[in-house]
Amino acid sequence: MRVGELSKRSGVPVPTIKYYLREGLLPAGVLTSPNQAHYDDEHLRRLRLVRALVDVGGLSIASVREVLAAVDTRDDSLHNKLGKVQEAISQPGSADLDPLAVKDVQEFFGRHGEDECYDVTQSNVTHMLAAALSAARSVGHDHFRQVLDAYLEGAKIIAQADVEYIAQQRSSDDVIEAMVVGTLIGDTVLKAVRRLAHAQLSRAMFSDGPGDATPN
Amino acid sequence: MRVGELSKRSGVPVPTIKYYLREGLLPAGVLTSPNQAHYDDEHLRRLRLVRALVDVGGLSIASVREVLAAVDTRDDSLHNKLGKVQEAISQPGSADLDPLAVKDVQEFFGRHGEDECYDVTQSNVTHMLAAALSAARSVGHDHFRQVLDAYLEGAKIIAQADVEYIAQQRSSDDVIEAMVVGTLIGDTVLKAVRRLAHAQLSRAMFSDGPGDATPN
Repeated sequence: MRVGELSKRSGVPVPTIKYYLREGLLPAGVLTSPNQAHYDDEHLRRLRLVRALVDVGGLSIASVREVLAAVDTRDDSLHNKLGKVQEAISQPGSADLDPLAVKDVQEFFGRHGEDECYDVTQSNVTHMLAAALSAARSVGHDHFRQVLDAYLEGAKIIAQADVEYIAQQRSSDDVIEAMVVGTLIGDTVLKAVRRLAHAQLSRAMFSDGPGDATPN
Repeated sequence: MRVGELSKRSGVPVPTIKYYLREGLLPAGVLTSPNQAHYDDEHLRRLRLVRALVDVGGLSIASVREVLAAVDTRDDSLHNKLGKVQEAISQPGSADLDPLAVKDVQEFFGRHGEDECYDVTQSNVTHMLAAALSAARSVGHDHFRQVLDAYLEGAKIIAQADVEYIAQQRSSDDVIEAMVVGTLIGDTVLKAVRRLAHAQLSRAMFSDGPGDATPN
């Protein structure tokens, strides 16, 4: 397909595609004449992945380049590639960690046999968790760590649905693109659905008048 | 207690307390001399709630005033108060909703008997959900709605832990303060824990080499 068709099928404007080409995020097409290049489905898949990383993930061009290098590494499992992309799209949170919150995270990992798999200080994901528990402690909620085991139990059900969703994709680029979209847009979907579950429980527990049928 | 003790026990600096007093977010203390006021545990609880709304919730002073007015309304159930605070601390997301995403949300609510309780266009929470599904559709992930039922199933387990956590509080101000902290800091905790669950599943499904024992 020509660049116009690539733009139409991906929803990415032609000038943006040309920018990605110049930045090396998208491999050059096959020249069919001095002014025209031909693109195939591989380009379309790569373009969708780049767009997800930039538009949904908010990654810089330099970070997208790093992610693509990891995705393109031979002799690496899909699991390792997904892990690298997960790190790239996860903000580590505040730099100030409360040592007691770090201990909370380590104990939580220990209970779930994860202590060998995550280094609290090295991973953006665990840093995010320790930073959130530090923030809770800083406002007097040291005991918020009580929720962690139930959160993991609920998150396993959610993650199963996420994995089933991304497993419907065929190519490695598409799996990773669906993982980026599903992880990041899923964060917001889950924020909203969790509030819906809060409202359901609150209605059952804290209503005490006929005007309380609606949560809002 | 004097203002210095109030500051010490709440962790809020004295100038910030004086600012909240001037803005009417904290009721005046009882004057014990022309230059000295006495504060009690009610002030401390209210101060913690204001701090949670401002520092954790990121609310403007005007929004905090509205939330406090709702909290202080007589003849209203805790459920309705929690619902109002939940709305105040929930960003509605992008204004552009895809009508198909709105339909996804309505069908989701219909399946769970929630269609009478939420007006998709009137609630920040449902708007957030519709905006996230709109974003997924805009990048070609129309089918991401498939995850909604599993998300709700997982969120119910999570919400149960949240409600047990806030039910440990004694006063209405403390319950609402714990709800604000638990909802917002809980969002980030859940983001991290969900990624941990992703990594666990990915390790089980997508590892294919001896170097794959660690997710990062």
